[in-house]
Amino acid sequence: MTPAARAGDSVAAIDTPALVIDLDAMERNIARMAAFAAAQRLRLRPHAKTHKCAAIAALQLAAGAVGVCVQKLGEAEALAERGVNDIYLTNEIVDRAKLSRLAALASRITLSVAVDSALGIDRLAQALKGSRASVTVFVEIDVGHGRCGVAPAASGALAHQVVSHGMRFGGLQAYQGRAQHLRGDAERSAAIAHAVALVRAAQASITSAGIACPLVTGAGTGSFVHEAASGIYGELQAGSYIFMDRDYADNQPSAGAPLFEQALFVKTQVMSWGTSHVVLDAGHKAHAIDSGLPVVWGRDHAVANGGDEHTVLRRGPSGAELPALGETVWLVPGHCDPTVNLHDHFIGVRGGLDDGRVESVWAIDARGALR
Amino acid sequence: MTPAARAGDSVAAIDTPALVIDLDAMERNIARMAAFAAAQRLRLRPHAKTHKCAAIAALQLAAGAVGVCVQKLGEAEALAERGVNDIYLTNEIVDRAKLSRLAALASRITLSVAVDSALGIDRLAQALKGSRASVTVFVEIDVGHGRCGVAPAASGALAHQVVSHGMRFGGLQAYQGRAQHLRGDAERSAAIAHAVALVRAAQASITSAGIACPLVTGAGTGSFVHEAASGIYGELQAGSYIFMDRDYADNQPSAGAPLFEQALFVKTQVMSWGTSHVVLDAGHKAHAIDSGLPVVWGRDHAVANGGDEHTVLRRGPSGAELPALGETVWLVPGHCDPTVNLHDHFIGVRGGLDDGRVESVWAIDARGALR
Repeated sequence: MTPAARAGDSVAAIDTPALVIDLDAMERNIARMAAFAAAQRLRLRPHAKTHKCAAIAALQLAAGAVGVCVQKLGEAEALAERGVNDIYLTNEIVDRAKLSRLAALASRITLSVAVDSALGIDRLAQALKGSRASVTVFVEIDVGHGRCGVAPAASGALAHQVVSHGMRFGGLQAYQGRAQHLRGDAERSAAIAHAVALVRAAQASITSAGIACPLVTGAGTGSFVHEAASGIYGELQAGSYIFMDRDYADNQPSAGAPLFEQALFVKTQVMSWGTSHVVLDAGHKAHAIDSGLPVVWGRDHAVANGGDEHTVLRRGPSGAELPALGETVWLVPGHCDPTVNLHDHFIGVRGGLDDGRVESVWAIDARGALR
Repeated sequence: MTPAARAGDSVAAIDTPALVIDLDAMERNIARMAAFAAAQRLRLRPHAKTHKCAAIAALQLAAGAVGVCVQKLGEAEALAERGVNDIYLTNEIVDRAKLSRLAALASRITLSVAVDSALGIDRLAQALKGSRASVTVFVEIDVGHGRCGVAPAASGALAHQVVSHGMRFGGLQAYQGRAQHLRGDAERSAAIAHAVALVRAAQASITSAGIACPLVTGAGTGSFVHEAASGIYGELQAGSYIFMDRDYADNQPSAGAPLFEQALFVKTQVMSWGTSHVVLDAGHKAHAIDSGLPVVWGRDHAVANGGDEHTVLRRGPSGAELPALGETVWLVPGHCDPTVNLHDHFIGVRGGLDDGRVESVWAIDARGALR
């Protein structure tokens, strides 16, 4: 698809709907997270599933990130092709064809991967056999998310299996996804305290197997302050902090957390107008609603789901006038990651959404990289 | 993105996650809807927002459809480029740059468009002025959807404005989107009866303005039996019937409706395995959840939202064993249209999901055509 704007265009000239980054805000977010990790003497490996874009990964790496995370092998391939050369796949692969692709990729870049089954480890070792590629392997434990990962007590046996195959054991993958969206900071703190207890149990299991555990990696934008304070996590994987979204903005802030600004927007315009509601030219084919509806940036209009290609606005508590036919409305998506996956390009604006200019048009390199 | 399979591959060889069509089922759906429309002496103009694919549009046209509908100008451009030459854009455009594109497209294919504002009509006329292109213009009325469209009493003035500009007035766009997903057939029947009363009022408004109303067009997969029976709709726009989804399957069937079979699936595999749950390698970046979670095809496993890239299965009422690590699981998406928009290709299977072969790999030509 053709980008919605070209470098040098005014903000007014950006076609709608378009996925727009406030570059000034995003760069401040990148710098603040980098400064936080540096001050805490922690490695920062931002999750690139959020942006799927090599140009943005390059900005994070330039600010001190040790590499990036991805969730899909196809994401790793797309980013590697555009120059990202240290990638951790924080997810399991058991499919043989995919493991062959992984081995091929590992011969070109520094690659890590998570495992949570004996079958997965055996197949990974088979795929790497005969190739001169090596990968670093993290054992994932379930620290309360209830999705992937083994119980802490099972981690020693898996780590042992990894090293028995001659593969490098990297440590523990310990991501508590559910903690990210608990609204109260005390709730998030408690969830991460529980995760930390499970990590300690897993470390004990690994030590009992006679294996050193070099690193514990995890954390997201909602909880990283607590993982950082644990003294046990050595690497932070937060991703959404670069953009933020309505869902993260609904969280009560954590003490000591950097201020992250809203940097990702969907530019829309009013395409139908009634006396009691107006309709925007973007629906949930343009912004993901898995974490709830978007909000209007800077206005309190009430937002209703208008379906695949529309969003309906009504007057909000302030009673402010609804925008006119053809007028621009900026939406803050409910959830940044899957919203990005709906678009082919980021339109990067310098100088603010009101008077700025388009500076960057970046392909979302790994959009649709599901496999 | 690379397709998940090649023509000739076995079903087992299709990489996951992948969007798979049961071609036999889809072709029966196409034939049954075409036969229904022919028996009712109604025009069928299927909505291509469902499939966004010129190859599938060609099958519908070969079965007797008069053309297709789209919801976005970019969809029309993408399909026109692949040979679809009669397209109705069932949505409003007020943006001048888009209207210039529309005028350019109208010089190459037979194009219709909806309007619901004086501003939109004036700008459309301006865009067409000077070009030798013509479009057929439908006035959209709100028949209970509460989204776009004017009140019936306002339609005469808009039709008059259309003809005053020398444009061809095509009739009324009257789609009741909310009726599609009412579960009971009596509820859907009542909603369409109300829509029909509003259409009659709009026809009276147009007749009073001294203008003939050549056609009333609308209807979707949930309600088309009722529009067809009304005697007032001349064209059906249903789209989802070719694929179906979990949401439409939840509707109580309408008497006299053709049987539509589930033809669209997301092929997934188990990538993490626990004693009480298993995790699939596809989440809501691979299947849209705006209308609810997917279901497992042919099994009663309980489905939970696993986030962007995972789906969690637990035992269902039957207590049937959960699938093993690496095993294939077929998901029926909650909503077909936005699910299609997440993928780059359809993998078309002939001979069933168990023993079939890949026959077609079709690009989803208008995926991401948001503008």
